[in-house]
Amino acid sequence: MDSITNKIGGERFEAAVPLYIQIAESLLERIASGELPPEERLPSERELSQALNVSRMTLRAALRVLDNKGLLIRRPGDGTYIAKPKIERQAAKLVPFTENMRSRGYQASARLIVFERRLAEVSVANKLKVPVSAPVYYFQRLRFINKEPVLLETCTMPIYRFPNLEEHDLENRSIYEIVETEYGIAPHHSEQSLEAVSATDFEAEWLGIETGTPLILERRLAFDKDDFPLEYGHDLYRGDRFRFVTEIAPLEMKRDA
Amino acid sequence: MDSITNKIGGERFEAAVPLYIQIAESLLERIASGELPPEERLPSERELSQALNVSRMTLRAALRVLDNKGLLIRRPGDGTYIAKPKIERQAAKLVPFTENMRSRGYQASARLIVFERRLAEVSVANKLKVPVSAPVYYFQRLRFINKEPVLLETCTMPIYRFPNLEEHDLENRSIYEIVETEYGIAPHHSEQSLEAVSATDFEAEWLGIETGTPLILERRLAFDKDDFPLEYGHDLYRGDRFRFVTEIAPLEMKRDA
Repeated sequence: MDSITNKIGGERFEAAVPLYIQIAESLLERIASGELPPEERLPSERELSQALNVSRMTLRAALRVLDNKGLLIRRPGDGTYIAKPKIERQAAKLVPFTENMRSRGYQASARLIVFERRLAEVSVANKLKVPVSAPVYYFQRLRFINKEPVLLETCTMPIYRFPNLEEHDLENRSIYEIVETEYGIAPHHSEQSLEAVSATDFEAEWLGIETGTPLILERRLAFDKDDFPLEYGHDLYRGDRFRFVTEIAPLEMKRDA
Repeated sequence: MDSITNKIGGERFEAAVPLYIQIAESLLERIASGELPPEERLPSERELSQALNVSRMTLRAALRVLDNKGLLIRRPGDGTYIAKPKIERQAAKLVPFTENMRSRGYQASARLIVFERRLAEVSVANKLKVPVSAPVYYFQRLRFINKEPVLLETCTMPIYRFPNLEEHDLENRSIYEIVETEYGIAPHHSEQSLEAVSATDFEAEWLGIETGTPLILERRLAFDKDDFPLEYGHDLYRGDRFRFVTEIAPLEMKRDA
């Protein structure tokens, strides 16, 4: 351990984090803690650089870091504002979107933008445990919070289990609620994964953001009690509006850490 | 429901997904299912467009979508390859990184790139439940898989609980193992969040990727059995190399869906 001990206390590590990153981190933490509240206008560059005791160049570099994280809203001719806080989704629970948003005081709505019958290709067929080329429903819903598009959902479901799915109100009802009420099939368990991806032109256009903006991709496979797949979901959440949270209980820590 | 029923079966929805997106989705699913295996070289544009029965323009647009998702590696003068599969991390379990990677057959290593003593600012102090300006350790580790940098970890820990932390081997030992073995403090539970963010210049340089590439940001607060915070972590995973997975058990589905 001598090699590390020797370095500590010297100048080597002190210089490793550039000043603008330190300033950015400090601002990031203040935003995260609520000290700098959302939708608040930042002081002018001159005022802010004086308050933080850094050059305007350093301040600008720090603000660019925050901008990259989607934490600032720049209104040309007006000023720079702190972005709205990210909305939390539970990563290890299946909380219906609309209910989740309403409980947080948001107005939620949805628009069905694609509804098709397709023939399952190999990978979808494997996921849904249907024969290759079996008919499946493929539909996309755009979800809004306070009228702003924030989530692009894609669902694939086997037609033979959910005949005439199109007769139900896919814009105003939860899929799991429809599945349970109309088809008597209760979702029992599911597998999810979360990834960070860049928005393509197509996704960016629907979500009202720039191409290349980071999105959270949630893939989800939901099963009934007999372990039979009901739905394959591929949902794209705007990275600037959502975070996924989990808690690790004592038992899991003991087992794994 | 009339409005939706009327639209279905007509041409309106059929036209909504452009052909290049359909082709991209089909390729995406084949990659996800392993039908197109990682590190495989794609056929030439001419061959692929003929096999898929689309124009080269459509194929190129589809490949751009895959490229945006970090699924292709383009080697100029050679060809286009399928990227390596993403590595899975458990979102609801605390599995030490090195152990996790080794169990998957990867060679894991770490480099301590920053180690500093700092005074806690308001938000960090609140998180770690120490007074404002209390001394904390702040350190960053760059994690490698098969010598490729994939994860930039930032840890903040209260000094008064972990005096002389720098004397331990932070490059080769897990923090939780050090905390438990050297200080007799067992991590008991933790809270995490996952976000999608863009890499800043600084992060991109360490991770060997382009600025703006999507990263998964995991924030983590770990506690001892008395609910006292031990560590605040801020970890950036390369979006092209990782996904986080969770399972939702029957009980959770029943309660929430």
